[in-house]
Order: sequence, then C-alpha cells, then structure tokens
Amino acid sequence: MSGNTFGKLFTVTTWGESHGPAVGCVVCGCPAGMELSEQALQPMLDRRRPGRSAASTARREEDRVRILSGVFRGKTTGTPISLILENKDARSKSYDHLENVFRPGHGDYTYQAKYGIRDHRGGGRASARETAARVAAGAVAALVIGRAGMEVSSLTLAMGGVWAKTHVPGEERNNPFLCPDPEAAKAMEKRVREVKKAGDSIGGVVQVRATGVPPGLGEPVFDKLDAELAWAMMSIGAVKGVEIGSGFAAAEALGSENNDPVTPEGFAKNDAGGVLAGISSGQDIVVRVAVKPIPSIEKEQDTVDTNNRARALSISGRHDVCAIPRINVVCEAMACLVLADFLLRHRAAAGFFSKES
Amino acid sequence: MSGNTFGKLFTVTTWGESHGPAVGCVVCGCPAGMELSEQALQPMLDRRRPGRSAASTARREEDRVRILSGVFRGKTTGTPISLILENKDARSKSYDHLENVFRPGHGDYTYQAKYGIRDHRGGGRASARETAARVAAGAVAALVIGRAGMEVSSLTLAMGGVWAKTHVPGEERNNPFLCPDPEAAKAMEKRVREVKKAGDSIGGVVQVRATGVPPGLGEPVFDKLDAELAWAMMSIGAVKGVEIGSGFAAAEALGSENNDPVTPEGFAKNDAGGVLAGISSGQDIVVRVAVKPIPSIEKEQDTVDTNNRARALSISGRHDVCAIPRINVVCEAMACLVLADFLLRHRAAAGFFSKES
Amino acid sequence: MSGNTFGKLFTVTTWGESHGPAVGCVVCGCPAGMELSEQALQPMLDRRRPGRSAASTARREEDRVRILSGVFRGKTTGTPISLILENKDARSKSYDHLENVFRPGHGDYTYQAKYGIRDHRGGGRASARETAARVAAGAVAALVIGRAGMEVSSLTLAMGGVWAKTHVPGEERNNPFLCPDPEAAKAMEKRVREVKKAGDSIGGVVQVRATGVPPGLGEPVFDKLDAELAWAMMSIGAVKGVEIGSGFAAAEALGSENNDPVTPEGFAKNDAGGVLAGISSGQDIVVRVAVKPIPSIEKEQDTVDTNNRARALSISGRHDVCAIPRINVVCEAMACLVLADFLLRHRAAAGFFSKES
Amino acid sequence: MSGNTFGKLFTVTTWGESHGPAVGCVVCGCPAGMELSEQALQPMLDRRRPGRSAASTARREEDRVRILSGVFRGKTTGTPISLILENKDARSKSYDHLENVFRPGHGDYTYQAKYGIRDHRGGGRASARETAARVAAGAVAALVIGRAGMEVSSLTLAMGGVWAKTHVPGEERNNPFLCPDPEAAKAMEKRVREVKKAGDSIGGVVQVRATGVPPGLGEPVFDKLDAELAWAMMSIGAVKGVEIGSGFAAAEALGSENNDPVTPEGFAKNDAGGVLAGISSGQDIVVRVAVKPIPSIEKEQDTVDTNNRARALSISGRHDVCAIPRINVVCEAMACLVLADFLLRHRAAAGFFSKES
Repeated sequence: MSGNTFGKLFTVTTWGESHGPAVGCVVCGCPAGMELSEQALQPMLDRRRPGRSAASTARREEDRVRILSGVFRGKTTGTPISLILENKDARSKSYDHLENVFRPGHGDYTYQAKYGIRDHRGGGRASARETAARVAAGAVAALVIGRAGMEVSSLTLAMGGVWAKTHVPGEERNNPFLCPDPEAAKAMEKRVREVKKAGDSIGGVVQVRATGVPPGLGEPVFDKLDAELAWAMMSIGAVKGVEIGSGFAAAEALGSENNDPVTPEGFAKNDAGGVLAGISSGQDIVVRVAVKPIPSIEKEQDTVDTNNRARALSISGRHDVCAIPRINVVCEAMACLVLADFLLRHRAAAGFFSKES
Repeated sequence: MSGNTFGKLFTVTTWGESHGPAVGCVVCGCPAGMELSEQALQPMLDRRRPGRSAASTARREEDRVRILSGVFRGKTTGTPISLILENKDARSKSYDHLENVFRPGHGDYTYQAKYGIRDHRGGGRASARETAARVAAGAVAALVIGRAGMEVSSLTLAMGGVWAKTHVPGEERNNPFLCPDPEAAKAMEKRVREVKKAGDSIGGVVQVRATGVPPGLGEPVFDKLDAELAWAMMSIGAVKGVEIGSGFAAAEALGSENNDPVTPEGFAKNDAGGVLAGISSGQDIVVRVAVKPIPSIEKEQDTVDTNNRARALSISGRHDVCAIPRINVVCEAMACLVLADFLLRHRAAAGFFSKES
Repeated sequence: MSGNTFGKLFTVTTWGESHGPAVGCVVCGCPAGMELSEQALQPMLDRRRPGRSAASTARREEDRVRILSGVFRGKTTGTPISLILENKDARSKSYDHLENVFRPGHGDYTYQAKYGIRDHRGGGRASARETAARVAAGAVAALVIGRAGMEVSSLTLAMGGVWAKTHVPGEERNNPFLCPDPEAAKAMEKRVREVKKAGDSIGGVVQVRATGVPPGLGEPVFDKLDAELAWAMMSIGAVKGVEIGSGFAAAEALGSENNDPVTPEGFAKNDAGGVLAGISSGQDIVVRVAVKPIPSIEKEQDTVDTNNRARALSISGRHDVCAIPRINVVCEAMACLVLADFLLRHRAAAGFFSKES
Repeated sequence: MSGNTFGKLFTVTTWGESHGPAVGCVVCGCPAGMELSEQALQPMLDRRRPGRSAASTARREEDRVRILSGVFRGKTTGTPISLILENKDARSKSYDHLENVFRPGHGDYTYQAKYGIRDHRGGGRASARETAARVAAGAVAALVIGRAGMEVSSLTLAMGGVWAKTHVPGEERNNPFLCPDPEAAKAMEKRVREVKKAGDSIGGVVQVRATGVPPGLGEPVFDKLDAELAWAMMSIGAVKGVEIGSGFAAAEALGSENNDPVTPEGFAKNDAGGVLAGISSGQDIVVRVAVKPIPSIEKEQDTVDTNNRARALSISGRHDVCAIPRINVVCEAMACLVLADFLLRHRAAAGFFSKES
C-alpha cells in the first residue's frame, strides 16, 4: 500500500536504489508447483541489460538474478519468492557534482520536496535501475501466464520521430531496436548516432501485445484490465501516454467505424485492443506507450541548485540516448504482472456456482 | 479488492446497475469535521445529468443524491459516507430485444464470458449510469482537496474530429460542449446533429487540469501520481487513451525540447504535466483522455446472439451521441478522488522526522 | 483500507450510525450465479434482532433487509451487492443528556479524541447496531461457504459467571441463550433478571464452530486462518478475548498432551481447533470469544463531561443487559466472512500447476 | 495481499525459509529522515536469538541484519527498506527422516494439503525462523513509534504452569525468562529442565504492554486497534489465544466492575487495556497471549506418513523446549508494527478540518 507493491493476488514488492548494494523484489502469490530456476528468469533480464544497442549506456551490469526463497527442488512452494540482483558497476563518484542540483526532467526536485532527503547517486530510487526488479518479477509472471497459454511481446513503432511503416513478421528480432520495419530500423540507428553526437536524447513509441488471453480477465468497475494496464505502463519512469486498441484515433472515429463487428467466426477486427468494458474479450490485448526522451543530456540546460540559485547543467555520465529498446522488456514485464494477477483474481470466483445447475 | 473500490485511504466503493432500484457508493476515509450537505454535492451531479446538450440521451434522471451516513449536524464524522441516487426513469422493457444479443463495442459479451450471467437491462453494471456514483464520491473528494487549495476542471479539446484551435479563457462555460474555442463549439454542435441524423456516434478528447496541487503527492514506484491518474481515467467506460503533459508528443521530441528548464522563479514551462518521477512538482497537473464514440448506434451492425447466430442489429433506444460533455465531470471526479487519496497518503508520513533536527 | 472494509476478495464495507436513516453494507466479490433473495438473508438478521431474550433491549427494529444491487432474476451477477436496513425505532431525544458526557466503557471519549466530533445519539457508529450490516453480509457469506459444504454455528458457554457444564446436542435451540446445558440456561435466565434488577450488566463466553471446512484455507504467514478469525472476532464491539482450540489452556499443557496425534483414520483429537500453522486441517474450526458486560448500566458511575468536569452518570435507556445471545450470530457472521474470503483466496492459486505433471 | 504482508501504510513483507540461504523482509512506508543503522536494529534481533535460556535450541545463528536499501547517509529516505539475515547454521540433513512424515502439531500436513508441495527442512516457511524477519521489521517500527513517545515491552506471566505471583519492577531483566517474579523465574527454570529431561515441551503466557500511546489510534469498525493486535499476535506461530485488558475475566465481571470510571484526573483503572471501541484511550495498551508448547518433542507420538501409514515419531533435533522467552520479542515486534501502522493511518486525516474553525 506504500506504493512499492503492485498486484492484489500475484504481487511484487520492489526495493533498491541505483547505487545501493543491490536491487530486488519479493513476488508473493505465485502458485505452487511451478518449475522455477535462475536460468529461467535470466533471459528477460538479459534483454533489459545495457550495451545491446547504440542507444544504451556504457554502465555494465551483469544483472545476474538470485532466488533466495520460495523454491524447493526446482519448484515454487507457494511462499514468497525473493529475488536479488547486485549492483556492481555503480560509480557514485561521478554523481558528486549533482548532489546539490536538480536535473531537469528527473525526479530530483520532487523527491526532495516529498521526502526532504534523497539519494542523489544515479537517481537513487527513481533510477531506471529499479526496473530490473520489475523485470525479474515479470519473468516469474510470464511463466505463470504461459501455463494458461498467454504470451506477451513488444515492438518499437517509433523512435526519435522515425516511424515503422511496414511490419515484416519477425523482423523485430533482427535489429537492436526491436523495430518490425527494417528500413525504419536503419533510420533509427542513424537518428540515435546524430542525437548522441548533438548531446541530446530521444523517445519513442512501444507497442505491447498479449496473445492467448482468455475472455473474462479484468475486474470492473475500477480494476478493469485496460485501466490496470494503463496504470502499470504509466508507472514506468519515462512513460507519458498509454493507448488501448485504437486509442486516441478512436476519439476521431465514428461509432460505426470503431465498433468491432461480431460474426459467428468471432470479432471482425480489433479496434478495441482486446478489452470490452474492462474485461478481456479473447482477442489480442494491444497497448501502446509513449516514451519520453531521456532527460539526462549533455546539452546545457537551465536549472537551479538546492539553494534555488540558477545553474547551467551539462550531464555527461553514462546514460542511454533513448529508453528504447531497453524499456520494451519492462513494458512486457508489467503486462505479464497485470495478466498474472487478473488470472488469479478471475480464478478465485470463476464458475463457482455455474456447476450447480 | 474486488475491483469496485478505488483508493487506499480516501476510498470509494460503488454499487448499482442501470435498471436496479438505485446506484450509490460508500466513501471511506474522509477526514472528520468537513461541512457536507446534499446541496454541496448536487452541482457536480447536475453537470453529469442528461439533457444538457444536443449530444445527450433523452433519459431523464433527477440524480438527487441522498446522504445516508457519516454526517452529523452538517459535518463529516470520519465514518463512512453512504450516498444513494435512485433510478427513476429506467425503461427496462425497451431492452427486452437485447437480452440475447451481444451489442458490438459494449461489455455484453465479456460480462457473459466472465460471470456466466448478466443484467442486460440498460447495460447493467457496465452502464455509464454507474458513473453517477463516481461523481457523487468525486464531489466529496473535491471538497477535501479544495481545503488544501486544489481545484480540478476540464475542457473539451476535440469532438467528432472537430478540434479546439484557440483557448478563450472561460469560454468553456459558454457552450454546452465545454469547448474553449467558440468557433469549434459551433462546429461540434453541427457535427453532433449530422451524426445523430446518420444514426451514428462520435467521441472526442477531454483535458483535465488540477491547479493548486502542492509538490510531493504521489507514491513511487508503482503508485505514482500519473500512473494512478491513468488508471483512474482508463477505468471510465469509454476511455481508450490517456496522456500526461506532452504525452504522445513527447515521444517525438528531443530531450532538450521536452525537459522543462528550471529557474529561480520556477519551471519555465510544463511539458511534464505537473509530474516528475511520479510525484507532483507544484505545477498544474494536465491529463488528456481519448473518449471513443458511443457504441450504441442506430446504424445496422453485424453481431451474434447468445447462441452465436449472426444478427443484424440497430439500436434505437435513448442513448447519447457522444459521451462528451457528460463524461467531462466524470473525469474531473476521478482526478479529485486520486488527489484526495494521495493528499492523505502523503500527510501520513510527511515531515514526521524533519521536525527533529 | 479505511477500516470499514473487511476481506480481500470477498469483502464487506459497512456504513451507518445507530440513529441515522439506515445502516447497510456493500458486499463485493460474491461469485456470480448464486441464488440470493431478501428472504434468504432475513433469518440470520432475525436472530440478531432485539426482544428475543430477557437480556435484550426494548428497542424494536424490524431489521428488514433490502437488496439494492448485484442480483438479477434471483441470482448474483458478480457485481457489488448493496444491502440496506432502515433505522425505524431510533429515539434520539433520549440521548440528549449524553451529548456532553463520556459514558464509561463506551467509545465516547476515544471517538471524540480521534475525530474531534462524534454522533452521540445511540453511540453513533460505535453502536452495536452497526453489527446488523455485518450479519447481512455474513448471511451472504454463509450461502457461499455453504456451497462448499461449510456451516457455522455457535453456543453460549457462559453468561454472567454461569457456565454450561454439559452439552446436550441441539439443546442450544431450546433456550433463548443458546446454551447447550438446560440447567445452566435456567440459571442464566435467573442471573439476567437479578442483574437487571440491580441496574447492572453481564458478559459471557461464546463458542463458534465451523464444520465442513476443507484443508488448505488460510494464507500464512500473516493472513493465517486463526489470525484473521481473531481479528474478525475482536473487531466486534464487546469482545475482549479470543481463543482457538485449546486456547489459553494450551499454555499450561505439555507438548505431548497438546499435540493432536494423527492416525490413518485422521486426527485423534482437536486441541488445535482445526488450524495448524495458520491453515485449516479439515477438522472443525473452534473459536471462543470473551464478551464483556454491556457498559451501559443504570447503576451510578463516575465519569467526566466534555469539559472534564466530574459527573455521576446513570444510564436508563433501552439497553441489553448482556450482549449474549444477540452477539452470537454476529460472531457466526464474522466467521462466515472470514471463511468465504479464504475460500476464494485459496481457489485463486490452488492446484494451478499440479495438473501439469 | 498474498498473506505475507502486514500493515496498510507502514508495511512489512517477509520472505524466507528455515533452510534457504536467508530470511528477510521489505519494510515500506517508513517516514523519511529517521536515523537508521544495522547497529540500531541488532539489539531486538539479539533478544530473539537462541541460546539465551535453558529453554532454547542449540542452533547457533548470528542473526546479523543487513540493510540493503532505503537508507542514505544514515537516514531513511522514504523508500523501501530491504533487510536480510543469512541462514548459517541450517543442518538440513537432520530433517531427511521427516521428509515423508507429518509431525503432529506442526504445519506439515496443512502445507502439503494447501500447496501440494512443502520444504520439509526445518519446517520451511512455517519455521519460527521466519519471525527473525518480523523482529527486524519490528525494530524499525519501534524507532518510528519511539519518535512519538511510544514504547513496547513484555513480561512472561506463566511458563509450563508456573505463574508469576508478584511483579517486582525491573525484575524481568534479571532472569532469562523475562519473569517479573524472581521466585517464579526459579521455578520456571526447574520446570524447563524437568520437561527437557522427559523429552517433552511446555508453553506459557506473555503480556505485552505499550506505553505512551496517544489517544486516537485505531480505525473502526474492522481495523480496530485491539482487533489488529489480536490478528498480529495470533499470526505468530505458537499463539492460541489473545486477550486485551481484563480479557476473559471480563466475561465473568459485572458492568459496574468492568467499566473503568473516569475522573478529571483520568481513568481510575485500566480493565479496558487501553482500548475503547477499538481506539486507543491514552492508557497503556495491555495484551496477553497464550503460547502453546513446542510441538517438536522427543517423546514418541502417533502420526502418519505421506502415504497415510501409521508411524511412531520421536523428534530429537535442535528445538526449543518452550517458545518463551524467545517469542516475547516477536510479540513486541508485532505490537510495534501495529502501532506504527496506526500512527501513520491516524496522521493521514487527523485534524485536517479542525484547524478550520
């Protein structure tokens, strides 16, 4: 309830700062009897690691996850699963000059305002490093929903103003930006290099898709599936917008265009994005998130220090130029967490009385 | 936890179906000693009532709210506030022909899939009528945050593809669509009449603004202010997208453009929408929501019945042509609920140890 | 979270004051498809009504429950069930002289200290009248757990120092005190009349038993079945102690005496009270609660008024002499609520992966 | 919500099994700016360590707590505090013979029934070792409530049928059983040695007292202070009964005896145990808990194995003879957690509108 726990039945509580000894999480409510190992979790974490595209930081973290509890002889026991990742390559010294200055676009000022104290090293708790713990938990959730036939994936639709124009199936696995359009992927690479050279940064748009989602997930009227997906995505550091299905385009469509007709063979299209009245319809869940540019830039910016004196700030440290593509797997992880939680919540009451008749 | 309660400390639990005897809610956690009367709540409810613009249904509900508990001699006592609104003009007969058919774009199919039973009359629990209870609760929340200097308002930015191009201060109070651009308001009226005539429907974009929000509200890393706003807005029936501040436009901007510089006089602009790292910055909170077209249309649509047989459906009942402008006050109510909850959550721990030094 | 909601998946939120227009509750998370009617709920409420024994108040409340939502054509729909009971025989005038005085043993002083305001009429929110809403919700829960073969009942073990010495099966249904010992029941009646005459009051001990509870209910390490039962019982106004199984007697026993041996035919006895390590074992759940004497007495007591001036107080209104036997059904209701919630929580994850192998 | 988190605003989530690599917890909601170090937490953990009385196991755990997050330059930052304690002296081999047998009085059978799998080594999650994490969190809570002037302590009232008859102030610090009566302490020691020799075990009664508790803590009607204390205490492994104030004795008293008269100088006595209508009154909070005898005994017991075949079992491992006195600090820790949570919950809304007038 303190803001660091997500989920109602399948829950994750994350902890840790960028430059503390470790980050980690406790996953509660995972059903017992599931095969679970550190090896099974590692691939999702590896996808979040830096150094896999031109857009990412030079910080080198192994991000080796350790399971400290909840697993016995390779299977979950139904008890809390404690996961930990050590922080190894934290160079706190390089943040010394930021101790008394508020970086624009970061949470420096607001953390100070809220708590009266902040760990300035690497952004402390507000660092994107916190998402490593989300991904570790999301990897557990992915296994749970996989058991029910669900799978979550993502694509990069846009980066630095470059939009994917085609969707070549599987192409997203062929380039470091997870872009389904090979031409756009090249343009993205070029854009990243330009922007990096200019000491600036960019954002983009990620699309998350969940397949195999059974009808019935979501708990109206507040805990709707789309509402919790919006919550989950917007809780990721750099995200400034979320759409389900046709999203903002729906606002300009006619009802006769936007409604998805139904035939005996199923829905004729999926502008709804797989959710009707907050409950999954059995179609793919489709979510798009807008990712803002990385706020840490080398270009000089106007800001103030903790004494409210004007300062010109240039941030040279080890930062990504774009949160994409590392943020993609974080979005996937959050979707997995949402679906795992709703799966269990739905199971609790589903069909309880229907067998009666 | 069942999905019908919103908030952690300042909570609302709503109940009621479109064609049951009443809808209502229980508001818990409201601080004691606040002046509260039915009269004080009514204005927000009146703004949600049908019949105030060309876009709205002919259903006539007085929506007179009654306070059943939690108030003594005109003041809140800190105990639960039970609010009730009778359903008076429910004509269930007119829904008889919809009993065995799934209306496209509605929750008919998903409710049936989830619960194995549904109240088809007027959409049952999935009806927009449920939002009357949200507004009643939001009106209580508005009084709470008002005490702390916060105020929430909304504007219609777009409707049926017609966008406001200018923002004449206060103009939104001069037209029934709450549009800040008088020319656009006229075009919206025209658009509504055309669409109605064509048996179709439209959507739009609403912008919600909260002023007077102190720095420090929001509880990272999951219960961020923007994340809960996204959740809150997306939990409203017709909403398909949510943006904070520059939103999707941020995805195309450079970091040097998107960051809000800080000067000793404060932030130089507000692309962040008043939230940094999930915590309010002291600037206005700005949220935009995409509202889909009303799914009930007279135009014939393809669908199936509960036996999965193809059906051609034309819905002629008493429906809005556009959820705007009635949805505006619902968006405001949800923002009030989010802010009231975070205000109390922040108060719980704020400054607890700082007085020490 | 505000303290007026109980349960995680099967939840009840109660509202209402003793002398307001009504009391009621919202039950969320009830599985869909269950037959539910006002008639089915009424019997449990009738057992809580005053006037059924010499120990009870002269206040006459019909306690007729109305269902306002969540039921369609006689079956639950999975949406919130709003239940309401009007307050009809509230004579607020008779509380005028108590407005500025703190009644010993009541919550007058503490409500004033906490909220800075209190509804003094009939004890306001702290009145035992609030338990009518709990019983209404408990009646719904009883139907849910009944579907799974569980049943909850209660006995009066002691009242005003008179203890049941024998347990004649079914005898508790033959006397107004629900005592299983016919001799003790007579002595209780005599004790009540003596005490009433002396302007005093008494308490007693109630034993609640749940039969048919399947193994596996309870969610360690905090939400243990016995822990939530203790919480539930102690949340009832007059309860000052709770025991599970052998309870305080276990503190004096040897391990070899207290452990319940297991044989291929099952447990050899039930000193554990049906719970091991916080999870139901399949044996009967046995809980005993200590009920304090009614604090409202005619005998003169020392107290202070709201200006902290000494006052001698004699309370003559319409009060029970003993909370037993009316409190018995409230204890049962709380046990039903606990079991219904744990039943759903257990269903969520139970056997999810075991089918795999 | 999964059962491993306690609290609403000041929360603890524990994890870990007896023979896993470590146990630990995440404390969320701790106010920022509090001085916190591993040294400050260690003393409470040391009091729980084995080997401090004749009653305790020979297992040797250093129980050195490490802080992994949430503290910066010696002060809390308002972010989650991750605490970890390594398991060093776990001898899993000695549990091999218990793998397929259900120990009477333990959770072996119920864990197997609930989860279909269990870590049998040292009791796994159901081991008392789990309470080390509670004490670590309780030590943080103790610092928080200490800031508000509250302090929690405990006494041993009874052990193995030996009751303290006098209360010599401070005497509980002079003997290993925390008994306030020096003669009883000697008799307890004798009792422990007899019982150990006989291969049996004993239980006892612990009294917890909180001083300096301000009026107003507790959130009726369900989250009453006494109700959550009962929950908290009953959630500790061996606890079978909980009383507040006069407790079960209240059930035999007259109202005129049990009510605490009030005078201009304050309450005349404290039979209420510091709680009226679920809210603290400003008097000391007094709670007594009944602790059952340790279920692991050398004396032969009847039980079954996982194939439901009869087995005669003698448990010789390293076990306490009595949970007292090690359990005392666990009870204190739980009381600290309850009070810290209610302190924050009360602060959230307290006095919000009273300044107005």
